[in-house]
Amino acid sequence: MRVDGRDALQLRPIHIENHYLKHPEGSVLITIGDTKVICTASIEDRVPPFMRGSGKGWITAEYSMLPRATQQRNIRESSKGKVSGRTMEIQRLIGRALRAVVNLERIGEKTIWIDCDVIQADGGTRTASITGAFIAMTEALLKIHKTKPFQVFPITQLLAATSVGMINDQGVILDLNYHEDSQALVDMNVVMTSAGEFVELQGTGEEATFNPTQLNEMLEAAQIGLDQLFEKQKQTLGEEVVSLIFKEGETK
Amino acid sequence: MRVDGRDALQLRPIHIENHYLKHPEGSVLITIGDTKVICTASIEDRVPPFMRGSGKGWITAEYSMLPRATQQRNIRESSKGKVSGRTMEIQRLIGRALRAVVNLERIGEKTIWIDCDVIQADGGTRTASITGAFIAMTEALLKIHKTKPFQVFPITQLLAATSVGMINDQGVILDLNYHEDSQALVDMNVVMTSAGEFVELQGTGEEATFNPTQLNEMLEAAQIGLDQLFEKQKQTLGEEVVSLIFKEGETK
Amino acid sequence: MRVDGRDALQLRPIHIENHYLKHPEGSVLITIGDTKVICTASIEDRVPPFMRGSGKGWITAEYSMLPRATQQRNIRESSKGKVSGRTMEIQRLIGRALRAVVNLERIGEKTIWIDCDVIQADGGTRTASITGAFIAMTEALLKIHKTKPFQVFPITQLLAATSVGMINDQGVILDLNYHEDSQALVDMNVVMTSAGEFVELQGTGEEATFNPTQLNEMLEAAQIGLDQLFEKQKQTLGEEVVSLIFKEGETK
Amino acid sequence: MRVDGRDALQLRPIHIENHYLKHPEGSVLITIGDTKVICTASIEDRVPPFMRGSGKGWITAEYSMLPRATQQRNIRESSKGKVSGRTMEIQRLIGRALRAVVNLERIGEKTIWIDCDVIQADGGTRTASITGAFIAMTEALLKIHKTKPFQVFPITQLLAATSVGMINDQGVILDLNYHEDSQALVDMNVVMTSAGEFVELQGTGEEATFNPTQLNEMLEAAQIGLDQLFEKQKQTLGEEVVSLIFKEGETK
Amino acid sequence: MRVDGRDALQLRPIHIENHYLKHPEGSVLITIGDTKVICTASIEDRVPPFMRGSGKGWITAEYSMLPRATQQRNIRESSKGKVSGRTMEIQRLIGRALRAVVNLERIGEKTIWIDCDVIQADGGTRTASITGAFIAMTEALLKIHKTKPFQVFPITQLLAATSVGMINDQGVILDLNYHEDSQALVDMNVVMTSAGEFVELQGTGEEATFNPTQLNEMLEAAQIGLDQLFEKQKQTLGEEVVSLIFKEGETK
Amino acid sequence: MRVDGRDALQLRPIHIENHYLKHPEGSVLITIGDTKVICTASIEDRVPPFMRGSGKGWITAEYSMLPRATQQRNIRESSKGKVSGRTMEIQRLIGRALRAVVNLERIGEKTIWIDCDVIQADGGTRTASITGAFIAMTEALLKIHKTKPFQVFPITQLLAATSVGMINDQGVILDLNYHEDSQALVDMNVVMTSAGEFVELQGTGEEATFNPTQLNEMLEAAQIGLDQLFEKQKQTLGEEVVSLIFKEGETK
Repeated sequence: MRVDGRDALQLRPIHIENHYLKHPEGSVLITIGDTKVICTASIEDRVPPFMRGSGKGWITAEYSMLPRATQQRNIRESSKGKVSGRTMEIQRLIGRALRAVVNLERIGEKTIWIDCDVIQADGGTRTASITGAFIAMTEALLKIHKTKPFQVFPITQLLAATSVGMINDQGVILDLNYHEDSQALVDMNVVMTSAGEFVELQGTGEEATFNPTQLNEMLEAAQIGLDQLFEKQKQTLGEEVVSLIFKEGETK
Repeated sequence: MRVDGRDALQLRPIHIENHYLKHPEGSVLITIGDTKVICTASIEDRVPPFMRGSGKGWITAEYSMLPRATQQRNIRESSKGKVSGRTMEIQRLIGRALRAVVNLERIGEKTIWIDCDVIQADGGTRTASITGAFIAMTEALLKIHKTKPFQVFPITQLLAATSVGMINDQGVILDLNYHEDSQALVDMNVVMTSAGEFVELQGTGEEATFNPTQLNEMLEAAQIGLDQLFEKQKQTLGEEVVSLIFKEGETK
Repeated sequence: MRVDGRDALQLRPIHIENHYLKHPEGSVLITIGDTKVICTASIEDRVPPFMRGSGKGWITAEYSMLPRATQQRNIRESSKGKVSGRTMEIQRLIGRALRAVVNLERIGEKTIWIDCDVIQADGGTRTASITGAFIAMTEALLKIHKTKPFQVFPITQLLAATSVGMINDQGVILDLNYHEDSQALVDMNVVMTSAGEFVELQGTGEEATFNPTQLNEMLEAAQIGLDQLFEKQKQTLGEEVVSLIFKEGETK
Repeated sequence: MRVDGRDALQLRPIHIENHYLKHPEGSVLITIGDTKVICTASIEDRVPPFMRGSGKGWITAEYSMLPRATQQRNIRESSKGKVSGRTMEIQRLIGRALRAVVNLERIGEKTIWIDCDVIQADGGTRTASITGAFIAMTEALLKIHKTKPFQVFPITQLLAATSVGMINDQGVILDLNYHEDSQALVDMNVVMTSAGEFVELQGTGEEATFNPTQLNEMLEAAQIGLDQLFEKQKQTLGEEVVSLIFKEGETK
Repeated sequence: MRVDGRDALQLRPIHIENHYLKHPEGSVLITIGDTKVICTASIEDRVPPFMRGSGKGWITAEYSMLPRATQQRNIRESSKGKVSGRTMEIQRLIGRALRAVVNLERIGEKTIWIDCDVIQADGGTRTASITGAFIAMTEALLKIHKTKPFQVFPITQLLAATSVGMINDQGVILDLNYHEDSQALVDMNVVMTSAGEFVELQGTGEEATFNPTQLNEMLEAAQIGLDQLFEKQKQTLGEEVVSLIFKEGETK
Repeated sequence: MRVDGRDALQLRPIHIENHYLKHPEGSVLITIGDTKVICTASIEDRVPPFMRGSGKGWITAEYSMLPRATQQRNIRESSKGKVSGRTMEIQRLIGRALRAVVNLERIGEKTIWIDCDVIQADGGTRTASITGAFIAMTEALLKIHKTKPFQVFPITQLLAATSVGMINDQGVILDLNYHEDSQALVDMNVVMTSAGEFVELQGTGEEATFNPTQLNEMLEAAQIGLDQLFEKQKQTLGEEVVSLIFKEGETK
């Protein structure tokens, strides 16, 4: 039924390769269908000016696409000399989402820089970025934890994201690829914790609208996808790390 | 109970002064509590390059704050030489929202430039901008309609926006002012048509999360506010214009 | 005789609404004919690097137009990523003019930020900005004076500005509107103190020239307009404030 | 009496070396005391977009200082990525001044680019730029005139500029060097044609003011300097060129 | 003897994964030791303005590093709003080098955009970029050749690059890693064709110098490395493609 | 045989005017044929952040062209808001080259700013800049030496640069002018010390290549030109300064 043969509520194949790069404290290559994103986490031993002296940490994210991640080559934002509105929106979303599952007091005055660089794009790059960045960030915090353990591990829940949408004649579908995304009437990104709580909900009618019933259908579809993403994250991190998160999370 | 004495589900006083400026095709000064925004609509007789030859019109929005719209003076974005991520997010939202209630084919190859300039800010500037910009845009299209009538008037529904949120110990509240916004655990902007359909839904946990039940409570609160905003818009536009919109809207 | 029926040496109607906004220390909406400018004054408790340790204060100004303040929509300077030469010239003029009637030693190491935002333009925006900004600045200094009185009030004179010009077949005219300004052979801005001293004189032949006799005629015309502007400023500030300025001014 | 031993109304030594560079259509090195400026004029066979189809020419100017033209090294504007307000003010002034003595219709749709690059600065760089640029521009128009004569030569008068000012205890002085400029209470630039008409008058009180009597004293001092500058320009251009200008000028 | 156990004239392990990405006309992931670069080639059906109408094609390159390709995170050039001098130097080098082995007339008015994005850096990123970009460019031209064969295939030789340098107490070494590069007295990049001709030679003393004898030693070392790189390129491209290049190359 | 009548291995006439400007610590106007560059050296009493506390000095260079240094007027880099890749490459080269003949420890924590401003360009501007900047830098260090002598004078050798190239039918030529440069198949810049050691070697095939034999021919030609440039530098600096350099240089 769908352009790539998937069922309406089926995710594309997911692969997360962690410890992907040599230098960053945390790094993954996340592959969702034909979408591929390198996510890295870097630790810096200070916070931005507006947080100095607060005793709290900070998490900030940057997002970019290689020029030829897409069907048509895009001009580099460094050549244009400015970052597009779309890029800014996405990187603000990623940072905000990650901060929702981290206890910033426990980190102390450190900044975690998340970099999500899309090397191949086929829809869902922002949700793949969040899902992958969560693993890179966890890796980086574990690295600190090994040499200088946190009193309480700062991550409180798993975090993942997926997209849902509505397409003419097809109704609600899960995990839109680029072709579907460009035709969707409604497009919704759902960021959720493994406790089933929303962190961010962004539903947009593309020259169209949606009613409360349709909203609920989309949210249910998202839940199906998110459950599988959390399962994949648990496999990647391993049982020990997952129980470290969940044990600590309860004490938040 | 609330810091300004309002009930949880009570809007702040609203005032919309239309025909506010001399030069623009449409213009309003919208006041919601202490938030004041000048919204103008300008008609340009061509569309951006990516739409040329499509026969369709385009609507684009820009948003800015005077430096001293806020408690602390902000550096002008023209002095910084770049537009912030927050500004970009808001102006993309305003443009997208307005396009959802306009039939762009009916406009023909024209661009409607919306400018929302906040002269005083006390929370809810983006939702006030959308609510006010809808009136300015309608005024501008009416101006065209008077000299060279559209076959079918291009606006298909009224459009308004409000915010809802959750605050510790207070639960769900409607139309957050700045003080409430800075303390909210969850903040949600709801853009809706007068047909009760969502155009945009942006719910964000601020280092917090929300569950599906809380989502529904917030959506119900938003509906209460939006009904009053549509009423205010009808009063401002007058019966004749409203029936022009609704008659045409049905034929979309 | 003039396009709007005025006599050659007649000002347009003036209105100054003070205490216009909630947040700034001083703010006015000044209306001269169809020209409307919001002027605000903000106090910052430090001075720019080049003045630190001098014990003196500083006054700096920024000027901008809303995109649709004019007949044709202008591109925002924040979108262009740079401020135009015209804007820079005007904001340097406003700052310089205000500094001439303030004793900066008496202020101490504080900066007064003046923001002049034109919401509707019909000629004379820079002179209206100076006339209005003087009131906003005075309001802001009075606010400090009330809680922590200056030994000597730092303002030494009233300050106002107007334009004069020469038009083919009409000779010298006062307070040019946009239509007149675009046709003037010579255009002169005169900034003066209430003691009748010049602060700034900028006379420009627009692909034309003027001789010493014409210069004197224009200066006399300006004096007529400035006398009325000082009268209006006195009404706006009230007798008590005016006598505070004049009493202190003498001691300069 | 003055820091460099001059009388109050004495100019510094002037030297104008024309045909200074190989490539530009017109070029001079003008030296006034220790101030040295390279002025070039370049002809481009089209006008800016806003003038196309008008049949008229255009004159535009750019001004810059070498980083070490001054006592302290200045950061290059190309490194800062933007042009300062001071630079913009000066280059707008130079262009405007030159346009006042050229009949743009006679030039046809050509642009004359004036570049004034200060290689050594000791006060009066903007007035030296105007005085030198006039010669470079004349050279460039003569070059056209030789191969393809204008029906009527487009320059209508000589043009020169100088500065005057007031210094504590010294009264009015002519042609301020840097040291005097930094101490002046009032600083006035006077741009004049050889017919004794003003083109531009910019008088500024530097945290000070001046009265009509002082204005007249300064204007008389300027006239003394300008007469000598016109004499120097006539020597540099030669009798033939001067009479070409004056003969044609009368017919304007 | 070397920090990673290599002999003085030994390359690091090389791996070239071609057809690496889905969208670009040509793409490789080249790995040289711990240096990893994604090189893509994109075909655009027009040339830059300065070449229009020439009948010739153009090749241009861009180079960038992911922020965490390095030991310390680098600020993105898109955030800084400008491209560094180092980046510009490298991308100009890559473009120039590739153009030396392509007959631009045979391509016709097309542009080949080369993008080299370093995802992990350990020295030699510019030479790895050239070596990898050659393969990506060849792939892209083959893609055109398959559907619309060139009369004569436009590539005339293989092209590869390597670095050589001199280190205190170690003499000349081949293929410097980051640690060696940061300690080298002399650093030389050699770009060569498979015909043994130099395309570019950039030798730099880092606060040091080198004599003609040392120059020759370094060039001989480079030759050893380049021979192996050409061999690797031949393996990657396959016999058929290599003979297509060499047959055509002779006819140049 | 050459376009300007020179023999293949003949330099253009050279003139170096030192003590050229009043303000900089060192300054020359270097003329090589029709190429004219103003080189200045400025001393700043601190080093860039990355060198603070090292006890070492730093040398950095900037390079620019006046807009009409060339046949066609160039847009100023300050107007474009960014510095071109070519400019960056050249200024990095100049700084690197000068640092190779200066013992930075002996300077202490000072920065020498070199500014090379081309006022007339006819090929070889970067090599003329290096040759001239060496004199300006030496002058500036001598100025320090006179008031506060260095224990050991920090300059260790003379430094000069020239270009060589290959042109169809003419073989190797020395010191290319602009016309030759634009036609050269191969272009090589050679920066050398008076001890006959290379500091920088940049050979580039312009859509062409060169073999080791041709490389040697070009290096021999460069040596001929460099010997004459060192002689000219010695004349300019005078015997006393030259022996100061050479005596100290030996002790490096």
